[in-house]
Amino acid sequence: MMQKQQSDGFSVTTGLPRVVIVGAGFGGLRVARSLHDAPVQVTVIDKNNHHLFQPLLYQVATAGLSPADISAPIRSILKSQQNTTVLLAEVTGVDTERQLVLTAEREIPYDYLVIATGAAHSYFGHDEWSDFAPGLKTVTDATHIRRQVLLAFEAAEMESDPDRQQELMTFVLVGAGPTGVEMSGAIAELAHKALARDFRHIDPRSARVILVEAMPRILPAFPEKLAQKARKALNHLGVEVRTNSPVENIDREGVVVAGQRIPARNVIWTAGVAASPAGKWLQAEVDRAGRVKVQPDLSVPRLPNVFVIGDTSSLMQNGKPLPGVAPVAMQQGNYIGSLIVQKVKGSQASEPAFHYTNKGNLATVGRSFGIADFGRVRIWGFLGWLLWLAVHIFFLIGFRNRILVIFQWAWAYLTFQRGARLITYPRPSHSQQKELVEELL
Amino acid sequence: MMQKQQSDGFSVTTGLPRVVIVGAGFGGLRVARSLHDAPVQVTVIDKNNHHLFQPLLYQVATAGLSPADISAPIRSILKSQQNTTVLLAEVTGVDTERQLVLTAEREIPYDYLVIATGAAHSYFGHDEWSDFAPGLKTVTDATHIRRQVLLAFEAAEMESDPDRQQELMTFVLVGAGPTGVEMSGAIAELAHKALARDFRHIDPRSARVILVEAMPRILPAFPEKLAQKARKALNHLGVEVRTNSPVENIDREGVVVAGQRIPARNVIWTAGVAASPAGKWLQAEVDRAGRVKVQPDLSVPRLPNVFVIGDTSSLMQNGKPLPGVAPVAMQQGNYIGSLIVQKVKGSQASEPAFHYTNKGNLATVGRSFGIADFGRVRIWGFLGWLLWLAVHIFFLIGFRNRILVIFQWAWAYLTFQRGARLITYPRPSHSQQKELVEELL
Repeated sequence: MMQKQQSDGFSVTTGLPRVVIVGAGFGGLRVARSLHDAPVQVTVIDKNNHHLFQPLLYQVATAGLSPADISAPIRSILKSQQNTTVLLAEVTGVDTERQLVLTAEREIPYDYLVIATGAAHSYFGHDEWSDFAPGLKTVTDATHIRRQVLLAFEAAEMESDPDRQQELMTFVLVGAGPTGVEMSGAIAELAHKALARDFRHIDPRSARVILVEAMPRILPAFPEKLAQKARKALNHLGVEVRTNSPVENIDREGVVVAGQRIPARNVIWTAGVAASPAGKWLQAEVDRAGRVKVQPDLSVPRLPNVFVIGDTSSLMQNGKPLPGVAPVAMQQGNYIGSLIVQKVKGSQASEPAFHYTNKGNLATVGRSFGIADFGRVRIWGFLGWLLWLAVHIFFLIGFRNRILVIFQWAWAYLTFQRGARLITYPRPSHSQQKELVEELL
Repeated sequence: MMQKQQSDGFSVTTGLPRVVIVGAGFGGLRVARSLHDAPVQVTVIDKNNHHLFQPLLYQVATAGLSPADISAPIRSILKSQQNTTVLLAEVTGVDTERQLVLTAEREIPYDYLVIATGAAHSYFGHDEWSDFAPGLKTVTDATHIRRQVLLAFEAAEMESDPDRQQELMTFVLVGAGPTGVEMSGAIAELAHKALARDFRHIDPRSARVILVEAMPRILPAFPEKLAQKARKALNHLGVEVRTNSPVENIDREGVVVAGQRIPARNVIWTAGVAASPAGKWLQAEVDRAGRVKVQPDLSVPRLPNVFVIGDTSSLMQNGKPLPGVAPVAMQQGNYIGSLIVQKVKGSQASEPAFHYTNKGNLATVGRSFGIADFGRVRIWGFLGWLLWLAVHIFFLIGFRNRILVIFQWAWAYLTFQRGARLITYPRPSHSQQKELVEELL
């Protein structure tokens, strides 16, 4: 059933309950998909036109994959779902009184609201570091880091002072969670293998890659033993791992770690995240990272028809907060989907509280070593890498992308080459362009 | 033999003649490659780190391919050529007296200089049109046009006024050379097929694609009969072709063509080109399009060791100027390569003048119609398209890229989907970033 437009297409009502989902990440998409044949009208709002497979974003930042390989247009994903409308817009707030989602252009009324807007970087109160230590959350972040990493080698090639050359070829990653571990491995391989023979005045194999972590160990979400295996694998790739090393300062010249200055022109932030401003929109209670504290059914206290899921929400399970990973968001999305169906059908039976089932944790170090934690079963090494590969490809949305990514990995694996070694720049007349784009919208 | 660095790596001399090539397009790369085992030291300077396969750039602009699919790092292409150094830098001028190429950072001395810097857009004295009618020469241009085209549909989906909706879904291409023809076909297919079912409030199949041309016919480089076939194929795809229609004005609201205003929010410039500023650098005589008028051996009058090739040069053959196409640049590159080898070897025999052999002309209209002109043999239709495909894939540098592109075409062909439907934005703090990048270099 095609909804025909009246005056403003996004406030038209067919009489069916209106479900508005803000954010088309792993969580938001699951909600939309599980409302597939429910008697509701669904509006999915996202500020980007594409769903992003974030776990592989570090591959874009290290020139292994193209942005389009790990993205799919939200409209394409949902195109055969006739009860669903996709809206490209940036949400500016929520009017919980009048039940409206606010954007610059319009107000979208809801009966049920799901906020799944994810997280951004947090520099723990040091926002001035962001200029020198970019983080990795969006495609733009990734192509920015790719540009910076590749330009560093170009600048080193042209530099005659050996100290400055080394500074340009020193990469510091701050934070040894999965992103920090995976990215440091990928940068080490890029420098030591893919670029090895491409320069005439520098030897990229002498590049230093340093992974610093304030805590006593890397990968805190994994068992100690697996984390140690990963650390060994990192060392084997030439990554220096420094634990117990809180970052004290970051500037143009490098970082100060545990009282010691490391001269480095490339610092990448893989540490803290902060939730999106959903807490402010809803005037709800948040935790230290800005995540909205939700009820056991993921609703917001005093707003029973407003739900917050994924990285934007904070929920304790067995005395521990749920981790900010894709499987939590996906399970929460499925849960909310069926909860809304129940409510719409007028079922008075109270739904059981949300429960996260941890099906396992995976991380990879370079192109042949992975770790997998399934509780009692722990796997590492090449088999761990194959597992990591299989799981990531399985979840990559869209058949085409999967095949493309497999092909590029196979190729990179066999040749050590990188296919996306592209230094691109934003268009020069950017402010003009932005105006045009805004005007166009 | 690895050249070791002394004080400044790029002015080090091994005693061998120094060949400096500015621009790593089709022409420049051919020169470098044909000096592969010559007793010279070669420096290739380009302002980008990648060679771009420009004939397929319209596929990036229309979301069919990713930028990395049609690019290859210049360093990778030349990595096993030990007499060659690649320098990422923007040339600002040439000191022909002291035989130096000037960049912001350094001066690079040459014994032989080859300028192969290609061409940029020309708005025929109406530079103010460039804001409303972007052209297509670089990866940044292509992702800019892709963003604009995709955003137009998004904006139309949100627009309630039918006139403005139609305005947003009207695409005007100015100039019916191969780029205009190929891009208009690709946009028509994008709108009428790939996006057909993705929206709820608009029907992308009602999008208008208009190709305007000041001359009486399209594709002037092709025989009249083939051009007519192409025109029919364009009509079949839903492209309106308007010949004898010079553009009189372009502004935010649309274009004025032959006295008539066409309201359109998407105008793309596929008309004139202007050569790079090589003429100014060399203080040499240029033609109307700014191309350096070269001698029969492609050298610059009074500068026998300076050569200009490809779109940057102007040479008459059989009373007609050579066209600005890749085969001309490649053949000129090969010619200059052997000419320099001759000169270095001290051969006094005068090389015969450069002669371009036209091996044929190809163009495609959409995903199953192509035209091919081999003089007496002319081919059109599906066979023409297959020929176009085979030739373009053959010349795409790098095996990996070829396979990837074949795969994506096969996929698009079977499903009508587009893989690279990504709206990306430059990073917000652009001026800051630019400073950082410049500082880094």
